[in-house]
Amino acid sequence: MKAEIISIGTEILLGDIVNTNAQFLSKELAVLGIDVYFQAVVGDNAERLLQVISAAYENSDMIITTGGLGPTFDDLTKETAAKYFGLDMEFNEWAYKRIEKYFRRIGRELTENNKKQAYVPKGSIVMQNSRGTAPGVIIEKDGKIFVMLPGPPHEMETMFKEQVRPFLEEKQEYTFVSRIMRIADVGESNMETRVRDMVENMENPTVAPYAKPTESFLRITAKAKDAEEANRLIDPVAQEIRNRFGDAVYAEGETTMEEVVGKLLMEKNLKTAVAESLTGGLVSAALINNAGISSVFMEGIVAYSNEAKIRLLGVNPETIEKFGAVSEACAMEMAKGAAERSGCRIGLSTTGIAGPDGGTDEKPVGTVYVGVYADGKNYAEKLSFSGTRERIRNRSVYSALNILRKEILDIG
Amino acid sequence: MKAEIISIGTEILLGDIVNTNAQFLSKELAVLGIDVYFQAVVGDNAERLLQVISAAYENSDMIITTGGLGPTFDDLTKETAAKYFGLDMEFNEWAYKRIEKYFRRIGRELTENNKKQAYVPKGSIVMQNSRGTAPGVIIEKDGKIFVMLPGPPHEMETMFKEQVRPFLEEKQEYTFVSRIMRIADVGESNMETRVRDMVENMENPTVAPYAKPTESFLRITAKAKDAEEANRLIDPVAQEIRNRFGDAVYAEGETTMEEVVGKLLMEKNLKTAVAESLTGGLVSAALINNAGISSVFMEGIVAYSNEAKIRLLGVNPETIEKFGAVSEACAMEMAKGAAERSGCRIGLSTTGIAGPDGGTDEKPVGTVYVGVYADGKNYAEKLSFSGTRERIRNRSVYSALNILRKEILDIG
Repeated sequence: MKAEIISIGTEILLGDIVNTNAQFLSKELAVLGIDVYFQAVVGDNAERLLQVISAAYENSDMIITTGGLGPTFDDLTKETAAKYFGLDMEFNEWAYKRIEKYFRRIGRELTENNKKQAYVPKGSIVMQNSRGTAPGVIIEKDGKIFVMLPGPPHEMETMFKEQVRPFLEEKQEYTFVSRIMRIADVGESNMETRVRDMVENMENPTVAPYAKPTESFLRITAKAKDAEEANRLIDPVAQEIRNRFGDAVYAEGETTMEEVVGKLLMEKNLKTAVAESLTGGLVSAALINNAGISSVFMEGIVAYSNEAKIRLLGVNPETIEKFGAVSEACAMEMAKGAAERSGCRIGLSTTGIAGPDGGTDEKPVGTVYVGVYADGKNYAEKLSFSGTRERIRNRSVYSALNILRKEILDIG
Repeated sequence: MKAEIISIGTEILLGDIVNTNAQFLSKELAVLGIDVYFQAVVGDNAERLLQVISAAYENSDMIITTGGLGPTFDDLTKETAAKYFGLDMEFNEWAYKRIEKYFRRIGRELTENNKKQAYVPKGSIVMQNSRGTAPGVIIEKDGKIFVMLPGPPHEMETMFKEQVRPFLEEKQEYTFVSRIMRIADVGESNMETRVRDMVENMENPTVAPYAKPTESFLRITAKAKDAEEANRLIDPVAQEIRNRFGDAVYAEGETTMEEVVGKLLMEKNLKTAVAESLTGGLVSAALINNAGISSVFMEGIVAYSNEAKIRLLGVNPETIEKFGAVSEACAMEMAKGAAERSGCRIGLSTTGIAGPDGGTDEKPVGTVYVGVYADGKNYAEKLSFSGTRERIRNRSVYSALNILRKEILDIG
């Protein structure tokens, strides 16, 4: 099956927002084994929208649009699609009830405009919007599928996952299942070298390497009659990757380093304190993204000044004088001080030079120490990063969490 | 002038990257007064690329492509464009010398493939790539302009700014200058109501409202012969907006709330301590994004547990028992404790319920208190937000910084 994605909205053409919807849908369709040969963006204009739909109709078996389902007069996706397919618009009682219910829930008044959102092309499938007011619509006609989704990303993504994906899975003879193997500590080219044989020679499943600024990952994709069979094909490949990379494989599937570490801390009930200089609160903020973390995350100290390191963490002034605040010894004392003063089993610290100024020959910008304290054990790791202030700090957060992860993997 | 942006690259169609190039170019063209009615994305495939170029040619006076200028066989933008316009490809000595020089500079070996990058359609304008190897190309033919830019964003953006923008400015009789008025504290619809007369009636400059998840802003855009004249037109409108919104206008132009507050603290040399519960380190991290902030930012306390609020910030246990940790009194004591214990003039605190659990009838999820301490003055503001955990926390960071901004505006 060939699909085209059409994003509707003048704000994209003006550059006010970046088109993340098209990326999300492209990724989802790739996993379903549906080819996307074109993406298009068009404004809130009936004539030009009709032109884009006509072209897409020639090229593709399926069109997916995002946007233009809102309550105002310039939201005209459904009306334009109905016109193109020669369908009348009709009032959908079910959709209207859902919209009413949504407004009651958020405690806002329904306006006459919102009634417009309950009109859909005759004979189409109506999809409830669990995150907003605009229902989605699917038209199936003449062997073509036309899917209309709302523009706000959280509404669109939820509707796709809950309703469009199952609908499309039924259409496909084969299903494609992907599993992401998340690998920390290993650079992109190193990772690629170690799996080149798999990437080049395997056909089903396939293995493909990806790299983001902070981490690399491998995607295993299997084509099979159903998900169960696909997973049976994937399992031994995943095992082989775990064998090759050991505990550098920090997770499988959709998750993040902060979620993995947060869960480990909660499962093992490890009370934790964080002491940050370089990362300025980002390590604490990352851990606190986990709901329920208050059972183990006790406190974070952003000790930016030397005085704060001494007073709040008990760092020895002589350590700072002798080795500097950016040093192995200081990182160790920060982690230990944070843990001991709060009565926690775990302490984690960062200190370093984020730049753009402050670097020296001996400690250039990007020099980072991560300190760990765990049940009496105390050490620090030296790292070096390049790039902007923001990048150095973000990579430091990720690495600090990964260092902690490896430390606590075997703690009972 | 009407333009269409074509992004070329299979990685966009697979959803592996988000198309930031199209956003960048759309924004730039809007400022130049060039209308973008369509954007398209197509893979590294000659036939489909030709199809997209043909359609764009019908609709537009100018086509700008990104991508497909690399050294490999599937980079075929220039070849396809040459074919479309009936031009031969020719070797460009100047471009080749530039590529050689680039490789010498980064200390890498030039391959035979890179020679391909020096071939351009006959008679075209060749643009040097100061950030990479692929030269850019402009074809002017039959009253149409065809601009080809490299795909990597930093190469593309630099080439556009240095070479394409001046080229286009000469074509345009008028220049367009925009100024963004950043407004905090005022909801989107409230803001719109207060400037509706300007939005509806003004022609040059125009005033347009925008809203992002955390803030709203107004964009004033003037059309004039040059930037100086445009700014003369903008100035009184900017003044009128400042009159209407007072100190809710927190900045003009490209900046952020954290930058504005960081600069104010540094200019006024106000030593600051932060105490965070709800925001878990994000307020500290936001301030620390400012280079040089270490002169005034002393420390941050992420006091997630009640015990930490008491021990590290000196919050009275009775306050927590009587009013709860999420209360006006607790927020006030947190801010005061952070400032007093570190000897700072300024203390800022957050406490609240980020959800998804933990809400009550009296204090539902989204209830937030921001505490301020400034030279002995001590108070807290109650806010309420809706949405996800992440959204509630991000809005709280922004609001806390804005509350601090207003407090310190008049401090000497």
